[in-house]
Amino acid sequence: MVLKDYLRDRSTLVDSALDRWLPGEKHLPYSLHQAMRYSVFAGGKRLRPILMVAASEAVGGSAGQVLHAACAMEMIHTYSLIHDDLPAMDNDDFRRGRPTNHKVFGEAVAILAGDALLTEAFRLLADAEANRSTPPETVLRVIELVARYAGSQGMVGGQVVDMESEGQEVDFPTLEYIHTHKTGGLILASVQVGALLGGGDEKQFAALSRFGGAAGLAFQIADDILDVVGDQAELGKNVGSDQARGKATYPALLGLAEARQRAKELCDIAVEALTPLGAAADPLQTLARYIVERNS
Amino acid sequence: MVLKDYLRDRSTLVDSALDRWLPGEKHLPYSLHQAMRYSVFAGGKRLRPILMVAASEAVGGSAGQVLHAACAMEMIHTYSLIHDDLPAMDNDDFRRGRPTNHKVFGEAVAILAGDALLTEAFRLLADAEANRSTPPETVLRVIELVARYAGSQGMVGGQVVDMESEGQEVDFPTLEYIHTHKTGGLILASVQVGALLGGGDEKQFAALSRFGGAAGLAFQIADDILDVVGDQAELGKNVGSDQARGKATYPALLGLAEARQRAKELCDIAVEALTPLGAAADPLQTLARYIVERNS
Repeated sequence: MVLKDYLRDRSTLVDSALDRWLPGEKHLPYSLHQAMRYSVFAGGKRLRPILMVAASEAVGGSAGQVLHAACAMEMIHTYSLIHDDLPAMDNDDFRRGRPTNHKVFGEAVAILAGDALLTEAFRLLADAEANRSTPPETVLRVIELVARYAGSQGMVGGQVVDMESEGQEVDFPTLEYIHTHKTGGLILASVQVGALLGGGDEKQFAALSRFGGAAGLAFQIADDILDVVGDQAELGKNVGSDQARGKATYPALLGLAEARQRAKELCDIAVEALTPLGAAADPLQTLARYIVERNS
Repeated sequence: MVLKDYLRDRSTLVDSALDRWLPGEKHLPYSLHQAMRYSVFAGGKRLRPILMVAASEAVGGSAGQVLHAACAMEMIHTYSLIHDDLPAMDNDDFRRGRPTNHKVFGEAVAILAGDALLTEAFRLLADAEANRSTPPETVLRVIELVARYAGSQGMVGGQVVDMESEGQEVDFPTLEYIHTHKTGGLILASVQVGALLGGGDEKQFAALSRFGGAAGLAFQIADDILDVVGDQAELGKNVGSDQARGKATYPALLGLAEARQRAKELCDIAVEALTPLGAAADPLQTLARYIVERNS
């Protein structure tokens, strides 16, 4: 598998599905739909959707069975970025080198665009036509799972603790709470949803859960490391911004070498968890390595 | 039926269910769960949940079949109020006589509390235990329907057009768009969900849809009228605030007498739509009259 081609093919697939499922800019209210599309199509790597597709394929399912849910996950990820960037939160003017949503559309529309993306994600997860080949009990399990990982005891909870920890002395359990909840959970959920909608059995679901848990945390540690050593142009944001803000990170708490070691260990755990799935999980294995070793 | 007793009994039922289903203040992150509970228990009339319970009973269902969905609807309503009150939107310091969420918890937590309530609502709608007596296909239809009425082409869309119309000359179609989307939709959805989860057939669903559409618009016109003639103490907000803000309202566009006439007509249409449901719909009929004639 050539990773670059794999990523390009899958993200093209996801992009065209997002374009199909997002309300058009010619639907009322225009400004809202423009704002939603602006951030969804702002150059994201589509990591969560691609992991979901790969997880579905690892259990013998297809991309088509999960594509709507993959788009829903990207909408939830995008809403969280829009709200995180707001002046009341991280107050970021740029993301991936482009002005953030509220800089272009104003704060009110940015808040509402986030709200609408989150809502649209659940509409899409429940969509009857998109789920026609999946048992409805499974679809409900998926919705419950996604809501749990995205909600007050998941991603939103992680964001609150992250915010409240800025400039504070943070211990290791708090740092792990932030990372597993704020970022790791949605990555784990992506892989689990791929297993469920792809028709995987409980054993496959358990294997992919182990994979997703380790890969999700490894991803965030790698992100922390990139903030210290990354290339500003490739990153599209200021290097060192976490430190400037007094954010809790792995390199800050463990040092760079040990953070790297921890990311590598988690990556090994993730890859090891794929063993029962055989060759069908090769793309996931490559993706896990990419997550830890990427440089942007 | 004594309306006061009916409203008190039902709102007690809804309040205790909300208390049971909302994450406790002793769950991490504390501030987030406190903020969620602060606004959910800020003295709302529970109109949407009560309408949902009454709709379920009108088609032969029970309160228990819809109680979780009724709570979900109240969480969605509450999230929309928290976000509407933000400085970037209506910038309100008080609601029902109490400081608004962001005045107590700060803007960041208020935004996230809204996000978490919306997410928790969908978790609850999909909850397996709460839906054990309902076919999963019906539950999925409910989730799709709620998301549609709450999203970019529903409530959020209505809020955007409302905001963009402030201080502008607004024509009647735009005013109707705002009212049916921003407020009417969630009331209609409450009644429709009651019909679906209560086990109603398509004929009953259609009758309740006519009822909910008319009652939802009547509610908003009555709200507009109250803003002009209401008692400030009972309203818990400043009388005349719509006018001061240059908001599009029915009294502003049609005059007070014609707005009253329009609300009464819609109420009659709503009540008329209940005929096929017989005596089981008596509470809904009383609720419709209350919606239009209430004075707070």
